Amino acid sequence: MRVGYLGPRATFTHLAVDTFFGESADALAYATIPHCMDAAASGEIEAAVVPLENALEGSVNLTVDYLVHERPLTIVGEIVFPIRQHLMVHPEHVDSWSKVDCILSHSHAIAQCHKFLHSHFKNARFEYAASTGAAAQYISQHPQEKSAVIANDLAAAEYGLSIVKQDIHDYHYNHTRFAVLAPGEIELPRQPLQGTPKTTLMVMLPSDQSGALHQVLSAFSWRKLNLSKIESRPMKTGLGNYFFMIDVEMELDEVLIPGAISEIQALGCEVKVLGSYHAYILK
Amino acid sequence: MRVGYLGPRATFTHLAVDTFFGESADALAYATIPHCMDAAASGEIEAAVVPLENALEGSVNLTVDYLVHERPLTIVGEIVFPIRQHLMVHPEHVDSWSKVDCILSHSHAIAQCHKFLHSHFKNARFEYAASTGAAAQYISQHPQEKSAVIANDLAAAEYGLSIVKQDIHDYHYNHTRFAVLAPGEIELPRQPLQGTPKTTLMVMLPSDQSGALHQVLSAFSWRKLNLSKIESRPMKTGLGNYFFMIDVEMELDEVLIPGAISEIQALGCEVKVLGSYHAYILK
Repeated sequence: MRVGYLGPRATFTHLAVDTFFGESADALAYATIPHCMDAAASGEIEAAVVPLENALEGSVNLTVDYLVHERPLTIVGEIVFPIRQHLMVHPEHVDSWSKVDCILSHSHAIAQCHKFLHSHFKNARFEYAASTGAAAQYISQHPQEKSAVIANDLAAAEYGLSIVKQDIHDYHYNHTRFAVLAPGEIELPRQPLQGTPKTTLMVMLPSDQSGALHQVLSAFSWRKLNLSKIESRPMKTGLGNYFFMIDVEMELDEVLIPGAISEIQALGCEVKVLGSYHAYILK
Repeated sequence: MRVGYLGPRATFTHLAVDTFFGESADALAYATIPHCMDAAASGEIEAAVVPLENALEGSVNLTVDYLVHERPLTIVGEIVFPIRQHLMVHPEHVDSWSKVDCILSHSHAIAQCHKFLHSHFKNARFEYAASTGAAAQYISQHPQEKSAVIANDLAAAEYGLSIVKQDIHDYHYNHTRFAVLAPGEIELPRQPLQGTPKTTLMVMLPSDQSGALHQVLSAFSWRKLNLSKIESRPMKTGLGNYFFMIDVEMELDEVLIPGAISEIQALGCEVKVLGSYHAYILK
């Protein structure tokens, strides 16, 4: 099975693909989210894995906007992955790691480790790379520089760096979410994990009227359908037009969700089912 | 007035600060969102400008999370700025721009111009920089490379590059939003623009119960308070705990919003007013 993902190699998206698909997939890196989604739509790959929330490398809004406006792909799975950032150095500097004078990484990774860096490397210089993987690669090729890198396990393994301090990120319950997208239903590798069922809907309100969202939510509320996420996003047609992404904590059934959708449509809203799938939490 | 912003120089955040504050501000670049917010909290600067939505350089979630969990700063203003991406080259290559073999930029900027690049530079190589500003700086220093850069007006001016194709971004109603943060109320420069009043609330539900959000929205709905944004964000205390960011389209008054807040608190929710301010749309 060919699985595309938002590259470069050794980033969190790559780690999520490797952990979730394991040996069953040929993982192919794509340079941008639209490239990766185009490849899935054209059949060049069977599934695309792109960030949906809280990602370092990808603009998450881009995934949602491209999904809604451009590519008729379906969400067939979700991977939830803990964000773990480690401090690593070239093997030559393992003994002197606390004396490095430069920290190199993606700017978001440096921001995620703000408290650790503030207390341990108050006087170090920060340098920014295009990704955590690119930072690790650079340091592996420049052992003469007294720099440390912030990146994940896979980057350490891929570029032969030594982890000198694990889990230096500030928030320990921080997760990143990835969507597995495909042109239609596909067979995902059987997971030893128990997945949580979910259905993602896109709801477009008829106009920016007060209380319209409240009416939309009534349709879920009186059916006791639990929502695990709701997010408004501006339409690309001008300011003041919004659509909503809503995650319902249940598989698409034949009664409850279709009933809610009919009611919402009767209010004048446009509704699109972006996918009904399982979410898997990886450790 | 000292105004800090998420750097580096010549990025959209810098452009927003320059356009909004003009001559009235000493603009200081900070390396990360937490650094910039810390500086505002400690009084090193009087205001911090950080991305709130749709930003290229900053992780927007980081702004919201840091605001809610760490820094007792108030939102005192909002700047809405259109995203305009241009193709630019070193002045030596103005005549041969369509024959460049490499496009250099921040990966999100390249993704935002996906359709243009797909039709005009099908065979070009893409290279990724830590920011659009860094890409522009690199090309200004390496005129021998046959590369074009995607960046904004300010980057072209700052690094002496020639814009050869304007507005190459795919979506023409794409905006980025910035928050102006301060430890308390401050005097913002008088704008020739009409601002829109807004109040941003953070609402924490007592537990992940079905229908709780619907009840919260009732408090706004029956008062005919219009919401222009709603977003759920996971708490950093574990999976399954959410808080909501809600934008009400009105200034904090003495009757309606406080009434809604009391009702929501009576439901067992925690509510925090993150700011009541004006949003300014820049052209």
